[in-house]
Amino acid sequence: MANLRIPGPTPIPDNVREALSAQMINHRGPEYAALLGRVTEGLRPFFRTEHDILIYTCSGTGVMEAAIVNTLSPGDRVLAVSIGSFGDRFGTIAEVYGADVTRLNVEWGMAAEPDVVGAALRAAPGYKAVLITHNETSTGVENPIEAIAEVVHAESDALLLVDAVSSMGCVPVETDAWGLDLIVTGSQKGWEVPPGLAMAAVGPRAWQAFESATMPRFYLDLGKHRDYAAIGQPPWTPAVSVMYGLDVSLKRMNEEGADAIFARHAAAAARVRGQMEALGLQLFADPRYASNTITAVSVPDGVDGKALTATMREEHDVVIAGGQGKLAGQIIRFGHLGWFQQRDLDEAVEALRASLITLGYQVPAAASV
Amino acid sequence: MANLRIPGPTPIPDNVREALSAQMINHRGPEYAALLGRVTEGLRPFFRTEHDILIYTCSGTGVMEAAIVNTLSPGDRVLAVSIGSFGDRFGTIAEVYGADVTRLNVEWGMAAEPDVVGAALRAAPGYKAVLITHNETSTGVENPIEAIAEVVHAESDALLLVDAVSSMGCVPVETDAWGLDLIVTGSQKGWEVPPGLAMAAVGPRAWQAFESATMPRFYLDLGKHRDYAAIGQPPWTPAVSVMYGLDVSLKRMNEEGADAIFARHAAAAARVRGQMEALGLQLFADPRYASNTITAVSVPDGVDGKALTATMREEHDVVIAGGQGKLAGQIIRFGHLGWFQQRDLDEAVEALRASLITLGYQVPAAASV
Repeated sequence: MANLRIPGPTPIPDNVREALSAQMINHRGPEYAALLGRVTEGLRPFFRTEHDILIYTCSGTGVMEAAIVNTLSPGDRVLAVSIGSFGDRFGTIAEVYGADVTRLNVEWGMAAEPDVVGAALRAAPGYKAVLITHNETSTGVENPIEAIAEVVHAESDALLLVDAVSSMGCVPVETDAWGLDLIVTGSQKGWEVPPGLAMAAVGPRAWQAFESATMPRFYLDLGKHRDYAAIGQPPWTPAVSVMYGLDVSLKRMNEEGADAIFARHAAAAARVRGQMEALGLQLFADPRYASNTITAVSVPDGVDGKALTATMREEHDVVIAGGQGKLAGQIIRFGHLGWFQQRDLDEAVEALRASLITLGYQVPAAASV
Repeated sequence: MANLRIPGPTPIPDNVREALSAQMINHRGPEYAALLGRVTEGLRPFFRTEHDILIYTCSGTGVMEAAIVNTLSPGDRVLAVSIGSFGDRFGTIAEVYGADVTRLNVEWGMAAEPDVVGAALRAAPGYKAVLITHNETSTGVENPIEAIAEVVHAESDALLLVDAVSSMGCVPVETDAWGLDLIVTGSQKGWEVPPGLAMAAVGPRAWQAFESATMPRFYLDLGKHRDYAAIGQPPWTPAVSVMYGLDVSLKRMNEEGADAIFARHAAAAARVRGQMEALGLQLFADPRYASNTITAVSVPDGVDGKALTATMREEHDVVIAGGQGKLAGQIIRFGHLGWFQQRDLDEAVEALRASLITLGYQVPAAASV
């Protein structure tokens, strides 16, 4: 099996993979109700919320759309804070549904500074919502979401809608304590299961907005998810096998414990960053806000980024991601999230070193991984 | 394992279940591109189309919504032909997105007769689309879609949007020959895999409508699915494990052959209907249009419908479905679609007989299963 080091899907533990293959059940019967209950409670220690956690069958993009269409109406003024391609996407979804979107675009590789967000809110009061990415998968930057949330709530009444697709379950997120009104994630990132499910935590202010929001929605309707969850059912037929996997992975994750998982991610990320720097590679992210789930580094001068990922895959069976959109060919992205072994990360870095050498790069003499 | 005889999810063959547990891959790499290509071509003999077949990560309801929002604009006049709760849902989705929906509601248990559809089209010309369910899962009725399509195209220029969630892959559907402009299905019905994926076949008239359709969409956008499919990728992270399963199940299905699968479904359905009648039970569906994938029968007088499904589950480990919505408690629904063994169907009928007796029903003397 390849050493899969993209920012999701992530490798799946063996016992989770076994669980995926369990025979089907009635998604409107008592077994599923028990499964849904266990999974929802298993997610809670990571979401740190006492409010609703609802499960969708879609990708992270689907549940980002759900966050918007369930809380906003066409014409609502929205501040879309973007530090990369997923931030851009969040704003675009709001535009597609008719929101009046003001973009606060931060240079890629940098985080959104809380005072910059505060200034934008003061400059044009009356935003109905702020859209923000917690961890920007395209650049490997983690926004300082606690401080940003504080500013948003201090400076406005705006709802805070948070894309935590590639952070939740891996790094601390205090949904209730920080006032994250609606926050979403996807199964294939921190949760040690395949893609197919996405989750949304919905606080009281988001539910209040839901009551008057008029953007059209049906499949992604939050209220239907809430009403069916109350009777232990999904509104629509869910990705049952991924639910089986999530049941098993959450058991393991809760045994390891949220704090231990967060510490493991932080340590692995620090180690990877150190290894990259030892290779003479430039971190793409502002080091103050470097992501603990994804490390992006610039492709060094003279090396072809596409050839680099191809060499790693073809000669070392290590799969990393290249840059997206305007960063294609300019950066590589290395995932260290979800279920990983330190050895796999080290081997991937070693493959990177070897591939760089193959492509003519001079590794600094002191480099050791 | 329970004998699962609901109208989806259906039981999964062992080799498909094994395939579900394969390790993750990069959904933007060459392995996924090959997988997507094989699956798309594997679906083609069942869809009977030369045009696009696109794969979504969502339930059947999600892809029904995709059919509407990608081809229509708010204010468009739509004829929503409904013979049950899924037909009602199709019309409701169009209303949610602002279509001007005229409902043609047929008594539940009956099919939509082509001349009735034709009369509705003549009575108020100018519909932009006709929405219709091929096989109504809530009532066990299969609409005569070929004849309806002929009338729709003879009497109007309306697009024909078809919900074939619980028929495609099980019964003949000539997408191109019958002029079914956009037709959708879900992985957990005829396809022998878990829920999580849905498929849409999109013909040239639907693509033409897509160009000018203004209903908002992002996650469900057809164009993004088409453009990414052209480079062997999904637009968003897909339910990879279900794709693995579908790759295996389609191989088996194509080995058995579409015509043989259709014949197997027809024979099993005829046998179940005969067994039900031998038990003295009344078919809920008009026999001329009884579904070849789901058989609905009325709960006999004096028997509690809820107690009947509970007795079957608790005493016989056979899981069937009750009625939905206004039919709750009044009918039971028995699935014979996808991957099934004749023995499982017969055992389920035997469990029904025994459970009816437990609940005080007098089985006719001649009844033998």
